[in-house]
Amino acid sequence: MIPPSTYDGRHLLADFYGCPVLNDAALIEIALRSAAESAGATVIGLHLHHFGEEQGVTGVVLLAESHMSIHTWPEHGYAAADIFLCGARHDPAAALASLSEHLAPERMVKTEVKRGELAPPGAHHRR
Amino acid sequence: MIPPSTYDGRHLLADFYGCPVLNDAALIEIALRSAAESAGATVIGLHLHHFGEEQGVTGVVLLAESHMSIHTWPEHGYAAADIFLCGARHDPAAALASLSEHLAPERMVKTEVKRGELAPPGAHHRR
Repeated sequence: MIPPSTYDGRHLLADFYGCPVLNDAALIEIALRSAAESAGATVIGLHLHHFGEEQGVTGVVLLAESHMSIHTWPEHGYAAADIFLCGARHDPAAALASLSEHLAPERMVKTEVKRGELAPPGAHHRR
Repeated sequence: MIPPSTYDGRHLLADFYGCPVLNDAALIEIALRSAAESAGATVIGLHLHHFGEEQGVTGVVLLAESHMSIHTWPEHGYAAADIFLCGARHDPAAALASLSEHLAPERMVKTEVKRGELAPPGAHHRR
């Protein structure tokens, strides 16, 4: 078994379609914080930008374990999220489930990309 | 030809190996700002976190056109970047070339993911 502190970079990209409410920055913040908590990740900073009334929101969370982001296009009911976590203890799938619960899409398309090839089994990393 | 204002979400994930200097937050900021400029993207906010002396840096840029990020592991000479741009006028490849120039990796592995299927040809988007 690979030690839990080993670097294990996993990057999930998720496209959410048919979301009912995407111009609410408070909702995006709640979704991001809940997703981080679900994944067992540590929030270092959270930054939101609302492009204007009835327009989209960008939210990015800096994590001790990398980052998460959401960008929304309310006029299309579309949101693009990414969840990049390193560390085998952390669970991108749990974060994704949490985002999906908050954004309530009709349909989701996800892509997972393994990030980096750093740690041989047994090696440790600070995170 | 698809109008330049059409949503055209492209997400580049790049793993940089063998980078000589990765614990310098100022360098990461310069790399991110130069990458945004190279891509013709508009910076809304830039946020950096330095994990400590000889440790890694996380840098995230909120863009009008989505975001870019860099996470570094100096002890491995490794950096993970992502460049998410929407809008056909913007060029993720130019941003990637700029990041690569600043991080000076021995080797790079990239993955490109098309984000979202929103706009039929002729449709327009605010960005």
